[in-house]
Amino acid sequence: MDSKNRAAAQLGPDYADLDREIAVDLVAANHILAHHGVLDSFGHVSVRDPRDANRYLQMQAIAPRDVTINDLITFDLDSNALNARGRPVYRERFIHGQIYKLRPDVNAVVHSHSPTVIPFSVTEKPLRAIFHNGHFLGQGTPVWEIRAVAGAQNNMLVLTNELGRSLAETLGQGSVVLMRGHGNAVAGPDLKTAVFRAIYTEVNAKLQMQAVMLGGPITFLNEYEQEKRQNVDRPWDTWRKEAGADSTGGNP
Amino acid sequence: MDSKNRAAAQLGPDYADLDREIAVDLVAANHILAHHGVLDSFGHVSVRDPRDANRYLQMQAIAPRDVTINDLITFDLDSNALNARGRPVYRERFIHGQIYKLRPDVNAVVHSHSPTVIPFSVTEKPLRAIFHNGHFLGQGTPVWEIRAVAGAQNNMLVLTNELGRSLAETLGQGSVVLMRGHGNAVAGPDLKTAVFRAIYTEVNAKLQMQAVMLGGPITFLNEYEQEKRQNVDRPWDTWRKEAGADSTGGNP
Amino acid sequence: MDSKNRAAAQLGPDYADLDREIAVDLVAANHILAHHGVLDSFGHVSVRDPRDANRYLQMQAIAPRDVTINDLITFDLDSNALNARGRPVYRERFIHGQIYKLRPDVNAVVHSHSPTVIPFSVTEKPLRAIFHNGHFLGQGTPVWEIRAVAGAQNNMLVLTNELGRSLAETLGQGSVVLMRGHGNAVAGPDLKTAVFRAIYTEVNAKLQMQAVMLGGPITFLNEYEQEKRQNVDRPWDTWRKEAGADSTGGNP
Amino acid sequence: MDSKNRAAAQLGPDYADLDREIAVDLVAANHILAHHGVLDSFGHVSVRDPRDANRYLQMQAIAPRDVTINDLITFDLDSNALNARGRPVYRERFIHGQIYKLRPDVNAVVHSHSPTVIPFSVTEKPLRAIFHNGHFLGQGTPVWEIRAVAGAQNNMLVLTNELGRSLAETLGQGSVVLMRGHGNAVAGPDLKTAVFRAIYTEVNAKLQMQAVMLGGPITFLNEYEQEKRQNVDRPWDTWRKEAGADSTGGNP
Repeated sequence: MDSKNRAAAQLGPDYADLDREIAVDLVAANHILAHHGVLDSFGHVSVRDPRDANRYLQMQAIAPRDVTINDLITFDLDSNALNARGRPVYRERFIHGQIYKLRPDVNAVVHSHSPTVIPFSVTEKPLRAIFHNGHFLGQGTPVWEIRAVAGAQNNMLVLTNELGRSLAETLGQGSVVLMRGHGNAVAGPDLKTAVFRAIYTEVNAKLQMQAVMLGGPITFLNEYEQEKRQNVDRPWDTWRKEAGADSTGGNP
Repeated sequence: MDSKNRAAAQLGPDYADLDREIAVDLVAANHILAHHGVLDSFGHVSVRDPRDANRYLQMQAIAPRDVTINDLITFDLDSNALNARGRPVYRERFIHGQIYKLRPDVNAVVHSHSPTVIPFSVTEKPLRAIFHNGHFLGQGTPVWEIRAVAGAQNNMLVLTNELGRSLAETLGQGSVVLMRGHGNAVAGPDLKTAVFRAIYTEVNAKLQMQAVMLGGPITFLNEYEQEKRQNVDRPWDTWRKEAGADSTGGNP
Repeated sequence: MDSKNRAAAQLGPDYADLDREIAVDLVAANHILAHHGVLDSFGHVSVRDPRDANRYLQMQAIAPRDVTINDLITFDLDSNALNARGRPVYRERFIHGQIYKLRPDVNAVVHSHSPTVIPFSVTEKPLRAIFHNGHFLGQGTPVWEIRAVAGAQNNMLVLTNELGRSLAETLGQGSVVLMRGHGNAVAGPDLKTAVFRAIYTEVNAKLQMQAVMLGGPITFLNEYEQEKRQNVDRPWDTWRKEAGADSTGGNP
Repeated sequence: MDSKNRAAAQLGPDYADLDREIAVDLVAANHILAHHGVLDSFGHVSVRDPRDANRYLQMQAIAPRDVTINDLITFDLDSNALNARGRPVYRERFIHGQIYKLRPDVNAVVHSHSPTVIPFSVTEKPLRAIFHNGHFLGQGTPVWEIRAVAGAQNNMLVLTNELGRSLAETLGQGSVVLMRGHGNAVAGPDLKTAVFRAIYTEVNAKLQMQAVMLGGPITFLNEYEQEKRQNVDRPWDTWRKEAGADSTGGNP
């Protein structure tokens, strides 16, 4: 990022009362997830607004790898943009609003087309925790079938609050919900944990696929096997460096 | 690209009446597809000439990653080069000419050895839409068997208009046709859509292969499940940046 | 690494009597294993202290890609840190201490989540030597099941000497022990050999998985098929250059 | 490569009568094959000496990615080094000498551990031409079993002329011979063709493995399906640029 772009990466006046760290971390989350191939040109990540639990923050609809803190927009939980000022918004933002509405414990959401997760959404093999860092997947992740709500004639996308709510209900109290033939949504108590889960959902999917390929019975994690408090800070720091994300909230 | 090369990247006098954007985008398409591994040293991409629907534009026969706007050549729909001036032309250009001839709705064509697509061309598993961004693959892509036209003693290549026509007929009204043991051809209404389809054909093939590996029944997209208007601009911009393609039409 | 960081990469006063090469190599081992994806943000590598066989050297608990010779800490074989001075230590260091305790012939240990090895830990297919550079895997590597020691209610981690001892006993006289749903531990007579084994354990796992995928009987290495003295210097040099590790013990 | 290294990359006095292009291309072949992962720290490539058909040229025993024209050594067909002057030589050079001895039509040889080829060497599935650029693999590549010559107590390596001769006899009139649990050897009429074949052997192996994974009957190339004259110049140029190999014969 050249110095001109860095200088341009300023939080707007709507965010004078926002902890700058929140915005910088949301930019880093975008860059980290793009760097890992969890987000490509599509997909998005959001955080609940720490200033108002009935709002969430998300970038304007550009590719995750390109966002800066300039791109921040505030939404209410019906996913109305409150300060878009003509900037485009992600069409599937309803995923985020509805999960925040149903899950007060959730403060960050990722929607992605994370590649190895998709095959689990179109087959009958449930994605399950097979690796200790994938423990949050538990004994199997639910799959949301859009046809059950929108019928056979649908466009595969979550473009309404009704569809978003249906998806959030399928997520239930879990961490991850698969979307058939489309992708997944990941929820976490904070941004770093949501990013950790999004990345390790992909890792766990790869490991499970290889275990299936080896054949025979598989030993999955049982319901107890997990750390009390997952260390998400160390991988966050590593990933942030690898993605070239810095403390300016600019675009590396 | 150093400034000397940038300066050298000039459209020739034959293209004084061509929208420069067309040529720059064709260069970017080459670099994007090479960056994604869809094109390697072989393969090619073309656009119908916006100045004359009975012509198409393609680069001289060099590696896609190396092309600049200097390399533009105009062909008629029998794939005669109209201004090669001694520059080599792709031997399999007949794929392009014959598809443009049979499909007036097609304005861009990609021929590639996109790796994960080839296994589907040599087995009986049809490549089908499994992922919402692969919807254009529909309920199964046809496979063109060169032996059916050229007999058992063939060289696997589309070196004549007769072979190109046979391939175009197998494509029919579809978006993608596989070429057994060789590669595929992708058609689109415009260049960005053709590039989108070429890349997501590879993505869909990977996902379908993994779904097969998981075993059991697979839920494919049905015939309705697609967006009315696919957003191809956002991924194009991302891919262009990733490939280092710029607005000069030079070689990054 | 900028010159300021290089200057900062100095061995502390505790290591005045340590061959500087040992520390530089341990830094390089961290960077090599991170570069190969054997170590990610987690995992660690250690060497027995050449000054005292009842001690071992390991970095403070930061990501392997970020370590420098500044990060060196000395541990006794019960994995008490002798000079941490407030720096964090790896929680699973007991793996190292207990292996050194049970195996006087071992002078270097790697614990990793090396990705392709994990599926072998959760299925009944033993990881075996299939490739001549994987000969040290022998006729099958043991799998350590934490439930057998810690019961069903465990956190998957080796956080005590008791668990470390159990793991070391499962390793026995071998080179590699798998940890179910978690990773593996690799032991070697010296650091370069341990790094070689850690990398080729992953390579061998990939090859064995592909052989399984091809189907039918597999010819594994027999018990005699191995070099008398494996050349580990040439790959070490290549890997060190690829990882950008230099002779300063700094962070590339 | 800095200018000091470039200046150092000079052909020795033994090669005053050698076309410099031969040495520069052999360096490029090393760098290309390393860049593609066909060669890693191990493996080697050679050319028959154009000045004397009873000799061949190979680099001193260092990692392929590091070689320059300084490293050239001449061998007779019994693989005696004629001008090593203390420099180490590859221990498995007998592969090269014996193939040149038995096959007057062969002028370049690659020995590698090309990863996806190895699984075919340990299973009963023959590696066959499935992709038009892999036509040289024909209707199946032979597998050399070292146990048949050296017995069950062997070290997997081709360390003698006797073993090299046995391998060359298994190659017969073909282009590629697999070495069980070890790697393969590729022969070509010239260096560029041998490099082309080494790279496309790996590509074909990946495609065949994926086709096996899809299941059902596979259509392989028949005995006629190949180009009369494979274009190896275009991929060579692309690969050379990607590997950063230049015309100085230095180390990029």
